[in-house]
Amino acid sequence: MFIPIKQKVSIYAYASVGGKDEYDGPFGRALDYHDSNDRFSQESWEKAESEMQRIACNLAMAKAEKDMPELLLAGDLINQCTSSSYGLATFELPFLGLFGACSTCAEGILLASLICDGRGVRVGSVTSSHFCSAERQFRYPLEYGAQRTPTAQHTATAAGAFFLCRGEGIAEVKDICIGRINDGGITDANNMGAAMAPAAVDTLHRYFAQTNTHPSDYDAIFTGDLGYEGHRLVCELMAQLGYEMGEHYFDCGLLIYDRNRQDMHAGGSGCGCSAMVLATHILPEMAEGKLNNVLFIGTGALMNPASVQQGLAIGGIAHLVHLIKGSGSEQKEEKA
Amino acid sequence: MFIPIKQKVSIYAYASVGGKDEYDGPFGRALDYHDSNDRFSQESWEKAESEMQRIACNLAMAKAEKDMPELLLAGDLINQCTSSSYGLATFELPFLGLFGACSTCAEGILLASLICDGRGVRVGSVTSSHFCSAERQFRYPLEYGAQRTPTAQHTATAAGAFFLCRGEGIAEVKDICIGRINDGGITDANNMGAAMAPAAVDTLHRYFAQTNTHPSDYDAIFTGDLGYEGHRLVCELMAQLGYEMGEHYFDCGLLIYDRNRQDMHAGGSGCGCSAMVLATHILPEMAEGKLNNVLFIGTGALMNPASVQQGLAIGGIAHLVHLIKGSGSEQKEEKA
Repeated sequence: MFIPIKQKVSIYAYASVGGKDEYDGPFGRALDYHDSNDRFSQESWEKAESEMQRIACNLAMAKAEKDMPELLLAGDLINQCTSSSYGLATFELPFLGLFGACSTCAEGILLASLICDGRGVRVGSVTSSHFCSAERQFRYPLEYGAQRTPTAQHTATAAGAFFLCRGEGIAEVKDICIGRINDGGITDANNMGAAMAPAAVDTLHRYFAQTNTHPSDYDAIFTGDLGYEGHRLVCELMAQLGYEMGEHYFDCGLLIYDRNRQDMHAGGSGCGCSAMVLATHILPEMAEGKLNNVLFIGTGALMNPASVQQGLAIGGIAHLVHLIKGSGSEQKEEKA
Repeated sequence: MFIPIKQKVSIYAYASVGGKDEYDGPFGRALDYHDSNDRFSQESWEKAESEMQRIACNLAMAKAEKDMPELLLAGDLINQCTSSSYGLATFELPFLGLFGACSTCAEGILLASLICDGRGVRVGSVTSSHFCSAERQFRYPLEYGAQRTPTAQHTATAAGAFFLCRGEGIAEVKDICIGRINDGGITDANNMGAAMAPAAVDTLHRYFAQTNTHPSDYDAIFTGDLGYEGHRLVCELMAQLGYEMGEHYFDCGLLIYDRNRQDMHAGGSGCGCSAMVLATHILPEMAEGKLNNVLFIGTGALMNPASVQQGLAIGGIAHLVHLIKGSGSEQKEEKA
């Protein structure tokens, strides 16, 4: 569902937090905060993930100065989205919980844009994922030392907070496209890229048709977390539909780690992966004017271990946010 | 966060589905569909819950006739909200996943109101819960025959779908109030009513202060799923703040079952509980003109078994929807 944003709505402040591997990746130095042991001073991985959301939101608030968000939207991969609720309770702000799996960063930003557009309130969108909390919930406790398949992705230990308001900012949300659930028949929980690719193709295809544009009309197109498998599939499937994705099509799951130095199998994933790439790469490049016109497509796999055990195919979803360079920048440039 | 809805936005079609105990309760005969063995022809409880969402949405679509929703918002209690994604994928509509625990019905309706208000698109909100899928996920598999404490609530096997549009309908959404996360220090996962009551009080108190109204200004006030414990606590805490909740204050968890005939401990709960009471009691009474001015407050406990095991207090949240009788009724009166 293509929806133009009528008022000028912009991302006016943002911050991101990551773990050791994320700091060691290509964009690690642009993180606002990182912890070299991924624990964030907490006694459990779940508490560490909540703490990452709190820190990311807090750091974005520091940059926003007096312009605090009036409403928070948040979500994560943990059962019942507790990373968000425990992480953000401390701010005592109106709160709406979201679940879009790894698409949650884009879902939050598009809903925030809609609410800002209609109401003029400042809305924050926060998302996170943590490799260790996700592994023991979705696969095996780390202590088992289980082998992973080549198509498996590595859940990024990262969180991002993005604040939107009416008016000028770093990047303006021009329009959005809400995705549909697409089931490509994939039942392998270690191949999320293939499970999500049809959803990304569905959203991109509908978006290009509706706007009468082509991949080459954008400076860059970033899907979230499809990884090596999913990125390749999107290129192939889009080509069949007559769209060459070209050299300016990237996937956040392939960008977040250095594939030559860091063995993360098929790439990164998790709600925090696309959030970190948006905060440490896409928005900084837009602020510098290197990117002016960008499509950001969050992709999510809508499953849980029980649904996989019960033999259900994994549904994918992809939400698109069209960003253009903002004419102002309220974001403070200092980094921690 | 109090937000008036600027345009006339109404619930124009709705449907609900329930299990055996819900059918045997006071409003069971107003369900659009029920299944006497709670299985809904499926081979697992999780699949049954997805099927309930599909049937509820389908029945609301039948009543909506040509005015299909253009966007679905949905959520449930199951890990990663799979009841919603598997239940609604078949409709191939743009989809946004929500997580608000038992407050999801109110969260979906208030977000749908905001989107309708700003955009004029028709938005459906669907929620569900199932006693058997919830028990084995949050507590014990039914086969264990575990004893439950007197303060424990019974997750309702029910689903509701509500479609909103600009214009006339059965009930108009006049304004909304988005809740904040409130932690009252409760760590007992068998006493959700006490965990959620402070959130309900916070939202009600802020709402009455902001609108300069009093409980007696409304024909009825319904909180979702606080049950016996929580309902009593809200009355006490609101009285301390100077608001007598009075005899027109009800809780969906106390209404859904007949406490004299059905032993459900402290009452009903679950995303489907308030959805079913809204669909089988509140909206029909509004259509008949018996209720004209109603506050509907969904309440949710933002926890999971791991957060309880890790000793974290259970955060509550409460979202308010202010409904007034609509001047038109597009809802078809036939029941299955």
